[in-house]
Amino acid sequence: MSMDALLYWVGMAAVAVNALTGVLDSSRKQMDLIGALLVGIATALGGGTIRDLLLDRNVFWVVDQAYLIAAMGTGLITFFIARTFPLPPRLFLIPDAVGLALFTIIGTQISLQWHAPWLVASLMGVITGVVGGVLRDILCNDVPLVFLKGELYATAAWIGAFALIGFQQLGISAVMASWLAMGVVLTLRLLAMRFQITLPAFSQSRSH
Amino acid sequence: MSMDALLYWVGMAAVAVNALTGVLDSSRKQMDLIGALLVGIATALGGGTIRDLLLDRNVFWVVDQAYLIAAMGTGLITFFIARTFPLPPRLFLIPDAVGLALFTIIGTQISLQWHAPWLVASLMGVITGVVGGVLRDILCNDVPLVFLKGELYATAAWIGAFALIGFQQLGISAVMASWLAMGVVLTLRLLAMRFQITLPAFSQSRSH
Amino acid sequence: MSMDALLYWVGMAAVAVNALTGVLDSSRKQMDLIGALLVGIATALGGGTIRDLLLDRNVFWVVDQAYLIAAMGTGLITFFIARTFPLPPRLFLIPDAVGLALFTIIGTQISLQWHAPWLVASLMGVITGVVGGVLRDILCNDVPLVFLKGELYATAAWIGAFALIGFQQLGISAVMASWLAMGVVLTLRLLAMRFQITLPAFSQSRSH
Repeated sequence: MSMDALLYWVGMAAVAVNALTGVLDSSRKQMDLIGALLVGIATALGGGTIRDLLLDRNVFWVVDQAYLIAAMGTGLITFFIARTFPLPPRLFLIPDAVGLALFTIIGTQISLQWHAPWLVASLMGVITGVVGGVLRDILCNDVPLVFLKGELYATAAWIGAFALIGFQQLGISAVMASWLAMGVVLTLRLLAMRFQITLPAFSQSRSH
Repeated sequence: MSMDALLYWVGMAAVAVNALTGVLDSSRKQMDLIGALLVGIATALGGGTIRDLLLDRNVFWVVDQAYLIAAMGTGLITFFIARTFPLPPRLFLIPDAVGLALFTIIGTQISLQWHAPWLVASLMGVITGVVGGVLRDILCNDVPLVFLKGELYATAAWIGAFALIGFQQLGISAVMASWLAMGVVLTLRLLAMRFQITLPAFSQSRSH
Repeated sequence: MSMDALLYWVGMAAVAVNALTGVLDSSRKQMDLIGALLVGIATALGGGTIRDLLLDRNVFWVVDQAYLIAAMGTGLITFFIARTFPLPPRLFLIPDAVGLALFTIIGTQISLQWHAPWLVASLMGVITGVVGGVLRDILCNDVPLVFLKGELYATAAWIGAFALIGFQQLGISAVMASWLAMGVVLTLRLLAMRFQITLPAFSQSRSH
């Protein structure tokens, strides 16, 4: 698989999986069809849009309508399935973790190809990975996952972005490094969901 | 009236009408002059700004100061009128519906002229139409109208954008199609405000 | 000091001071290291990012990694100091006022150099000055300072931007005018913090 094909098809998969989480999350908020669809579209396209604006690239879904169709199609199917079969509310956390992994690594890779400095590229990966979910959580009036303690959300993404850069420095091919780094993000995020891994934080006693 | 003149003057009218709704809404939140003016400016210029950034066009009010002056002038006049004559709180919903209709159709038309794919152009119309009001509602700490059930807010905009594209496919001139499609958005929105038209939604029993 | 050097070094100082306020504010919200760092980065880079996107300039920290390093470095140091030595919660208001003054004047000056119309340039200054703090307050779930009454937040910034333009019209050199205008913003903001200066506002009796 070439790097271009990987970016295209993994990008399409990430869009679909994020549209799914957006619509699933709206199902808990009694939105109607168009509201749920708009949340799905924002979740699917938000992160890559901010990345492209910051890099001064053409916004990916404006120049290639296929991404918007993928987001709307997945959103519609999810809407009618979720309406018919009630689903456990935390189910969307698994596809959300997959979307985080895919978008982070694609975002970092695209920024490196665009000749962004490496630290900037890693932050672009984090932005591509987390912004869609932040939009979803704000629109559905949840506390964004990225700000919950013990979830390693942005942390998993950032470590994965650094891993991608490191693997390529070590001479691993870009395609192989991408798959490995997606595995890093997904593994860290799933471990954190299971075991609540915490980072250094401001001490409890100082809250007010 | 040429298409360019229509886009310019209807755009100016849409800016003024949205500035008015922004300042009227702030009047319920005890903002001071500059706070109300900033909310008015954000409501007036927000939707078109996002559209221009996504299309990689020059941002309309940055290159032509007249739009900013129209927003500030309307905002100032509205501030001093609303301060003197208390107005019924839901009054701003009528100019808001007008702003939604004008901005949606202008936004779609500009995106089509920019050679955006048609589905993208329709979404750009919705974005141009709703973002200003969403910013206003967030800044004034209201639930955004676009997410209220039974209001057909984004739905009216999206149907109007599709109508615009359909009318032009049928051979109707772009200027005539624009006026007709603005009528479609406004009529749907006013009907929904009057009769609470609902779309398919997630069932009530699943809320938690 | 040349204008270019002033814009570069004062810009770097503004980034550092805003990163500091972002991390200090997160310390009251029990965020972990990465959460606090991301809030610091958003506070430091948010205003200039929006300015650059609106002006269609290259985003300043994407093309020069030094800004991102300054934000992260200051954020990290602040995190470990604030963790060890509890600080009074309102302490961040002083560096916040400094950041407001520096960013507003830099933002206006850069927009003038970019040949934005003068009223647009003044609004760009306000945006550059306030957006970082608004992002911080939203991410930390505070009411944005810019919307608090009697704080002259955006007002101080806007008056300073007009002062900058006026001083230069009077023939004062751009560098000297910049320092003077920063003084105007800082003085107004500190006076308002001390004395609660109020502007015309909607009357109390109309609240509901």
